[in-house]
Amino acid sequence: MALYSIFVNGEVCIDPKLVRADDFFFSGIHLMGDASNAVGSNVITVTVVESPGFNTFRISRACIDFAPSAINPPHTHPRAIEILTVLKGSIEIGFVTSNHENHLITKDLQKGDVFLFLQGLVHFHRNIRNSYAHVIAALSSHNPGAITIVNAVFHSNLDIARELLAKAFQMDKNVVYQIQSKF
Amino acid sequence: MALYSIFVNGEVCIDPKLVRADDFFFSGIHLMGDASNAVGSNVITVTVVESPGFNTFRISRACIDFAPSAINPPHTHPRAIEILTVLKGSIEIGFVTSNHENHLITKDLQKGDVFLFLQGLVHFHRNIRNSYAHVIAALSSHNPGAITIVNAVFHSNLDIARELLAKAFQMDKNVVYQIQSKF
Amino acid sequence: MALYSIFVNGEVCIDPKLVRADDFFFSGIHLMGDASNAVGSNVITVTVVESPGFNTFRISRACIDFAPSAINPPHTHPRAIEILTVLKGSIEIGFVTSNHENHLITKDLQKGDVFLFLQGLVHFHRNIRNSYAHVIAALSSHNPGAITIVNAVFHSNLDIARELLAKAFQMDKNVVYQIQSKF
Amino acid sequence: MALYSIFVNGEVCIDPKLVRADDFFFSGIHLMGDASNAVGSNVITVTVVESPGFNTFRISRACIDFAPSAINPPHTHPRAIEILTVLKGSIEIGFVTSNHENHLITKDLQKGDVFLFLQGLVHFHRNIRNSYAHVIAALSSHNPGAITIVNAVFHSNLDIARELLAKAFQMDKNVVYQIQSKF
Amino acid sequence: MALYSIFVNGEVCIDPKLVRADDFFFSGIHLMGDASNAVGSNVITVTVVESPGFNTFRISRACIDFAPSAINPPHTHPRAIEILTVLKGSIEIGFVTSNHENHLITKDLQKGDVFLFLQGLVHFHRNIRNSYAHVIAALSSHNPGAITIVNAVFHSNLDIARELLAKAFQMDKNVVYQIQSKF
Amino acid sequence: MALYSIFVNGEVCIDPKLVRADDFFFSGIHLMGDASNAVGSNVITVTVVESPGFNTFRISRACIDFAPSAINPPHTHPRAIEILTVLKGSIEIGFVTSNHENHLITKDLQKGDVFLFLQGLVHFHRNIRNSYAHVIAALSSHNPGAITIVNAVFHSNLDIARELLAKAFQMDKNVVYQIQSKF
Repeated sequence: MALYSIFVNGEVCIDPKLVRADDFFFSGIHLMGDASNAVGSNVITVTVVESPGFNTFRISRACIDFAPSAINPPHTHPRAIEILTVLKGSIEIGFVTSNHENHLITKDLQKGDVFLFLQGLVHFHRNIRNSYAHVIAALSSHNPGAITIVNAVFHSNLDIARELLAKAFQMDKNVVYQIQSKF
Repeated sequence: MALYSIFVNGEVCIDPKLVRADDFFFSGIHLMGDASNAVGSNVITVTVVESPGFNTFRISRACIDFAPSAINPPHTHPRAIEILTVLKGSIEIGFVTSNHENHLITKDLQKGDVFLFLQGLVHFHRNIRNSYAHVIAALSSHNPGAITIVNAVFHSNLDIARELLAKAFQMDKNVVYQIQSKF
Repeated sequence: MALYSIFVNGEVCIDPKLVRADDFFFSGIHLMGDASNAVGSNVITVTVVESPGFNTFRISRACIDFAPSAINPPHTHPRAIEILTVLKGSIEIGFVTSNHENHLITKDLQKGDVFLFLQGLVHFHRNIRNSYAHVIAALSSHNPGAITIVNAVFHSNLDIARELLAKAFQMDKNVVYQIQSKF
Repeated sequence: MALYSIFVNGEVCIDPKLVRADDFFFSGIHLMGDASNAVGSNVITVTVVESPGFNTFRISRACIDFAPSAINPPHTHPRAIEILTVLKGSIEIGFVTSNHENHLITKDLQKGDVFLFLQGLVHFHRNIRNSYAHVIAALSSHNPGAITIVNAVFHSNLDIARELLAKAFQMDKNVVYQIQSKF
Repeated sequence: MALYSIFVNGEVCIDPKLVRADDFFFSGIHLMGDASNAVGSNVITVTVVESPGFNTFRISRACIDFAPSAINPPHTHPRAIEILTVLKGSIEIGFVTSNHENHLITKDLQKGDVFLFLQGLVHFHRNIRNSYAHVIAALSSHNPGAITIVNAVFHSNLDIARELLAKAFQMDKNVVYQIQSKF
Repeated sequence: MALYSIFVNGEVCIDPKLVRADDFFFSGIHLMGDASNAVGSNVITVTVVESPGFNTFRISRACIDFAPSAINPPHTHPRAIEILTVLKGSIEIGFVTSNHENHLITKDLQKGDVFLFLQGLVHFHRNIRNSYAHVIAALSSHNPGAITIVNAVFHSNLDIARELLAKAFQMDKNVVYQIQSKF
């Protein structure tokens, strides 16, 4: 439909005269995601990508399920601050400050705890109990983006040159090759 | 402490060299609030007011508990968009568009449903089941503000002139007086 | 025309190569509006709604005429700060701060006085002389919006549930019904 | 007082707990300014410079009086859009678009006419009747700034090198000297 | 092509799915521009005007070549801060603060020196050696704009009224005429 | 000095009345940095960290020297877009789009080529010739930040738990240990 073929900030825009309640609505964020993968966690997001009506609204939402000892691997959100609340279980969160300090800050969170991650910083979560955990997060952009470090660096559609990664990570080229071929 | 006597955007500001994990942390948002009041609901907020470290972070959080048939009365957030998720029970939400249309838009939300309220619009929530409900919200400002309409109009510290309110609401002055004297 | 069917921030956008002086121009803001209504005042606005060329310009204008003892009823601007100047007569202005203080602040303004209202706060004006008054205002958005409280709460196109309003305003349901049926 | 020695955006900042109605108020903008100068016009401004409480409020106000055939010489506002309304008399306004078009756009305005000037563009006003004129303007910043071209280029506290100005304006150096020595 | 006929902030917008490396790329900024003109300098810019893919990216670039004793005449950038680095030779830079101080601040820059110009302020550059100079600048907008003062004031497509300029610059009307007729 | 002990956006702020030309100035960005390190490149930055006067100016600068076959390892700028220009030599640049595409986009740049990196995306540079290369960059923030991926993930002051990294990167824990112990 024509209304959905116009891009503002890289996203479609809706005629305000035609807006309906359902443009502000999304269902099913409480459903347990499928966490049977290598890291044991699953993320459901409600951003402008899933709900075009959210464009320009500067906020979005995510839920994460964690199997026992699951992790949400190190990642960044290039365009948003994140505020996280634990709804079930206990997780350890951590983030690392930028160059040149690279301070690691970690904290164990329980049900009802709220934590805030600054825009663009590398952060991660880890389930620290032998039971399922569930958290809900909000992000300060309708289009926060997410960059999982291992995917961006080692599993892009075309491989980054092995020599470059070996020098950057001070690894043997064979180790780079092994990581690249895992996915 | 000196660091907390400086105001930026009307809020204190912390020296980044002294920031600790606890500046990004708040505990206890899952605790059931005391909803034994006239409207039957209770709001817990985590904004720059409760957590000075949130200043400039453009996001905050709130939780609301609803007793059976409780309401969260008509209100606005002057500085934030709100994204709400139902965690327990069922609530009806509604908002009204601005002049001159004043369209009322309502929707019944169930567990796992997400809804978004535009900045500054009058909106409300109502528990539509005979059991407790619990929702979690995020707001797109560290200092969203909240204006409960009935309080701003009829229960300010000094009363707005009865003649003005009688004319504005097309009520008898005695009715204005009765509402003003309720609180 | 095609140029006017594209929406940016919910408003049309003009090709900069085709901009003319008249896109920045509006006429007739000094004309006395028809103030023969229930509140005795009339507002003329110059925003992106009346002048599509104002889109993205972050400013707009309004003029208000007041018959003797007229009021401009309690309202908010969800997307703008307002700066008001009295051009003729004397008016009382007032605004109420947000939860939980709800402080009422009022002041009598004379010709040449300037007053500023913060974004989203409930405010009102009242003619305090037995003659006509005229004020001019500017708002910090091309699309400031206006929400007249009584209209949003009691006179939306569909009525907000009487039970909810009775509980919110601690009124009898019959009183809610009377107010709702006035317009 | 300590509260006024802190600079945010280069301006003082007030503790929100101490804000009074007078922080949002300014008086006397209708008073006829002294227009007995070389250009015949006088500007009164209400910005954060005159009213510290306006800081961060993104709006300000100005009034201009014009003697017969007075001008407001070419100038720019580096940090604000301007919206102007004629309250008395008739003025010609003009602005020039930026490189490389440099299109001059002019219009004659009457009482009640509204015109908008884009941020940073060179613009000017001229009284086109043989009577006094009065206009009121709003600017989209609490700190809009104003750069009168002739003052910035020819009458800075230290003179810009005559060779540079002669080459820039393709004038004889003696003409530059004559203009520089006028003030 | 359809994608290039949509205007956002007055500029075309590209579908993010179709973005290629070349949308972020521009070639040839090191080429010596043709500085054989009245002021002896030449500017090459890389903004959204030359590279539509830069839209919304809030940054752009420029290079300037100076013949011996060349100048870059007084100008402003209405929508950007500028940060300049000298790559070859020595230049004097200057800027003038806004009303009412009009302070001239100048400095001689050598290879490797960095200087920053505030948004909208009148500034200029001058080659102070008898050899070519080359500088590179970045601007804090994809669409910074540039207003060369002499062109906006004296060489717009239609002439600004001679009476107005004579009064503004306190020049004889014949001098105004001479400057206007130079280009 | 007192003026430098106030934090706005986490950085000191200067009284505008005391600003001098040197607050906008930095020297020596052309000096060859010491590139005799593991990756063979050296970065010099001019941001609010080095020049407090740059605070709130939304722009900064960096220069990078590359020894033959040097790299600038994968990193992000959490608060800025980057625009890069090659001044000497040839470099390959690359960036990876965010989840879930993770497209690698690379390009070889020559002297005079300009390239733009989006905010927060992982990117890198590599000298592709057997001679020194030199590039200059501008960033769209006075405080852009830089996060070198390998340092944030494997070389923070306290080590991220080896189990978490092993699971995230699908590496053996011994490999994680080897990388962590390299620096």
